[in-house]
Amino acid sequence: MNPNIGETAAGSELHKVFAYIAANKDHFINRLVDYLRHPSISAQNIGIREVSDILVSMLSRLGLEARTILTSGHPIVMARWEHAPEAPTVLLYGHYDVQPAEPLEEWISPPFEPTIREGRIYARGAGDSKGQHFAQILAMESYLAVHGRLPCNVLLVLEGEEEIGSPSLEAFVRAHRGLLKADLVVTADGSMHPSGRPTVSHGCRGIATFELRARIANRDVHSGNFGGVVPNPIWILVHLLASMKNAAGEITIEGFHDGVVPASDVERAAAVRLPLDADQLKRELGIVSLDAPAERSMADRLMFNPTLTINGLHGGYGGPGAKTVIPHEALAKCDARLVGRQSSEDVLSRIEAHVKKHAPEVEFVRLESTPPSKTPLDSPFSDIVRRAVKTAQGVEPLICPAGGGTLPDYVFTRVLGLPSFGTPYANADERNHAPNENIRIDCFLNGIRTGAALLNGLGRCTGVERSLHSTA
Amino acid sequence: MNPNIGETAAGSELHKVFAYIAANKDHFINRLVDYLRHPSISAQNIGIREVSDILVSMLSRLGLEARTILTSGHPIVMARWEHAPEAPTVLLYGHYDVQPAEPLEEWISPPFEPTIREGRIYARGAGDSKGQHFAQILAMESYLAVHGRLPCNVLLVLEGEEEIGSPSLEAFVRAHRGLLKADLVVTADGSMHPSGRPTVSHGCRGIATFELRARIANRDVHSGNFGGVVPNPIWILVHLLASMKNAAGEITIEGFHDGVVPASDVERAAAVRLPLDADQLKRELGIVSLDAPAERSMADRLMFNPTLTINGLHGGYGGPGAKTVIPHEALAKCDARLVGRQSSEDVLSRIEAHVKKHAPEVEFVRLESTPPSKTPLDSPFSDIVRRAVKTAQGVEPLICPAGGGTLPDYVFTRVLGLPSFGTPYANADERNHAPNENIRIDCFLNGIRTGAALLNGLGRCTGVERSLHSTA
Repeated sequence: MNPNIGETAAGSELHKVFAYIAANKDHFINRLVDYLRHPSISAQNIGIREVSDILVSMLSRLGLEARTILTSGHPIVMARWEHAPEAPTVLLYGHYDVQPAEPLEEWISPPFEPTIREGRIYARGAGDSKGQHFAQILAMESYLAVHGRLPCNVLLVLEGEEEIGSPSLEAFVRAHRGLLKADLVVTADGSMHPSGRPTVSHGCRGIATFELRARIANRDVHSGNFGGVVPNPIWILVHLLASMKNAAGEITIEGFHDGVVPASDVERAAAVRLPLDADQLKRELGIVSLDAPAERSMADRLMFNPTLTINGLHGGYGGPGAKTVIPHEALAKCDARLVGRQSSEDVLSRIEAHVKKHAPEVEFVRLESTPPSKTPLDSPFSDIVRRAVKTAQGVEPLICPAGGGTLPDYVFTRVLGLPSFGTPYANADERNHAPNENIRIDCFLNGIRTGAALLNGLGRCTGVERSLHSTA
Repeated sequence: MNPNIGETAAGSELHKVFAYIAANKDHFINRLVDYLRHPSISAQNIGIREVSDILVSMLSRLGLEARTILTSGHPIVMARWEHAPEAPTVLLYGHYDVQPAEPLEEWISPPFEPTIREGRIYARGAGDSKGQHFAQILAMESYLAVHGRLPCNVLLVLEGEEEIGSPSLEAFVRAHRGLLKADLVVTADGSMHPSGRPTVSHGCRGIATFELRARIANRDVHSGNFGGVVPNPIWILVHLLASMKNAAGEITIEGFHDGVVPASDVERAAAVRLPLDADQLKRELGIVSLDAPAERSMADRLMFNPTLTINGLHGGYGGPGAKTVIPHEALAKCDARLVGRQSSEDVLSRIEAHVKKHAPEVEFVRLESTPPSKTPLDSPFSDIVRRAVKTAQGVEPLICPAGGGTLPDYVFTRVLGLPSFGTPYANADERNHAPNENIRIDCFLNGIRTGAALLNGLGRCTGVERSLHSTA
């Protein structure tokens, strides 16, 4: 397909929507302010029902078929518009729950009394992510207002548990595959690059967290009277950990790297273009060198390689001066970040087997895990998403093969098998999870435009392009 | 020399002293109770002056030339009786300071209101070690009362800072070599074997304590967004520590073992006779195996080999669940126990050089250190001390080549070049450093008898025997 076919007609249709958004700017800002007044704090079970009901009413008024679907936790809001049989279906994912607002005393204006200062709306959830999915909704509303229809099919999925780790999302997706037939997933969450450039992300690393617990004796003993006799749980953890990753930075657990996929040429080319500045990072963090191995590029470090991190290690005396003791227990807490097709469950099993082999006296405790998610950069939808962002925001977005952190994106890519893209709308200084969370009004309005441009771009996508994807 | 020469005459002389001790038993117990009423807590600077003055008065009344000698810390009490020109001179070392008494609420009777219950005197300092050097003083008093003279020369050195690490003792010894001319040192401190058998110790391991501080970044960072990029101070300590001692238990620091002397046949033979029961220890401490290396005997573990112990390691998160963080700093606290002719200062320099070579970003901080002390088992005085203990207590003492813990004994063996022996009088359950410290009255009385037998035994020692020692 030639992506320029029909561009003029589509452009004209989209410009009318952009004009409508511009004309309704103040109204949309007021509507977001109203929406942000309602707390929906998943961790504290505050306002979840109210906000999910507000969303269902709002989406129904737009003409979408909307409802809440119960889970074992907080309900998921689902809405669908499926009257474009020739066009693809986009699943727009977001979350309507927000972080707790504490510490309240650090907010300049109260977290649930949205306040506009210097071009930003301050409120809990403004950036993360009520302001972002509300922009998606207003994009649909605007398109419907101008054209009486959407150019493609839409499934909107807004969960109420993202801020507590999405414990029900995978089960929901597995139980409702039939309701979730789509061609791609787009998520507006997270923040833009600090330079202000928009990004299109194609996945994220997974994670596997675990504890190593060594308990040797029933009490601490004197290092003189028992030194050389009683085993030391810290030494045991030191030698176990040193057997898991060597000083050169190589993870040495058998089978750990199964599923690690070397970066493709396309991914490498995209990574090279990302503004990852090691020197600036060193200055900001006050570090003199990067982590071992020394010769890796920043993109290789963050996107294409797994990690094994000791998050904490505690045992024995930590106070001032000397205390000549052999401690009787020690604890290490670790996470592994995973890439490509690594399985977080398999990685945990490999680590457990390693511990059993090298230090059978150490207890291995599995904590949370999430598989990585990866959408190929050459997915045909990738370019549609990129062009939508550029059309709406006037800037070429950064193309990110994978984020370093972890999102529950695998439920779409690995469970449903769909390509999945992240298009964050919030400013980098949105202060998500912190007091004085905010979204810049221009980012919010650009988000509505981006949502409209995405729908428009997908509406121009032919069946040929879709089949290209489905055979990819 | 035939050690039996003069035994009958000496035995007769000693039995008169034993009879005097038996006749004055209640009086001696009351005198100890009076002495224990006076706190002398070095760490809190309570009662030091009063108790050192009490000792000088008491020793002067016995006819000794007694005085306090100022140090940069608490004064040292010194007393001498030197009217036996043909006999050797024994330096009796002890300490008149005691541990703080806290937690006070755990004492059944107040720490400075000595109370007799079930054959024990309960008070702070009863065992550690006022009851022990008071027994030495009463031994002299008894001998002087019966015979009007001592059978050998005595230098009594009682320091006031043992419970705070003897910070002034080495400088005192170096500054007053002329006042400290002696043939041997005997210390009554510590406790007897749990079986109730007395011991004669011939030294102790030294110690070198240090910290390893790794500070990498100016703040903790997210393990996803920075994992693979920002170095982890815990990993750095893990790899550094693993380079210092391997999983087989071998310390791998270059030069660390300089001065380690293999145990002699005499020492091995003595060690084999010690009741060191690995199985009982395992049961008591709930451990399933001894520390690596696996094939070492208990005596080798405790007496003849150095150790490297991690006393504590702390960095990053230690709370419940997972926290996906790369910590920015971590701290390890360590001690090495030293043997033979190892130098604690040299060992610290070797460790420092190792750290500089393997992890120059880690800060090495020297804490306290004390060299090991070693008196040969075949020192001619060894047998005199052994026979004195056996004569006084009626039990063959355990001959211990070296204790696992550390005492400031090196000031006598390494600075003054004297043979030095430990003859602890206190019961193994004396609860030193803890609430309800006590000494068994029979142990206290046996201590007086042992002190008398020691003086008596040394009085029978000829010049030939002394010269044997001085050329050893």
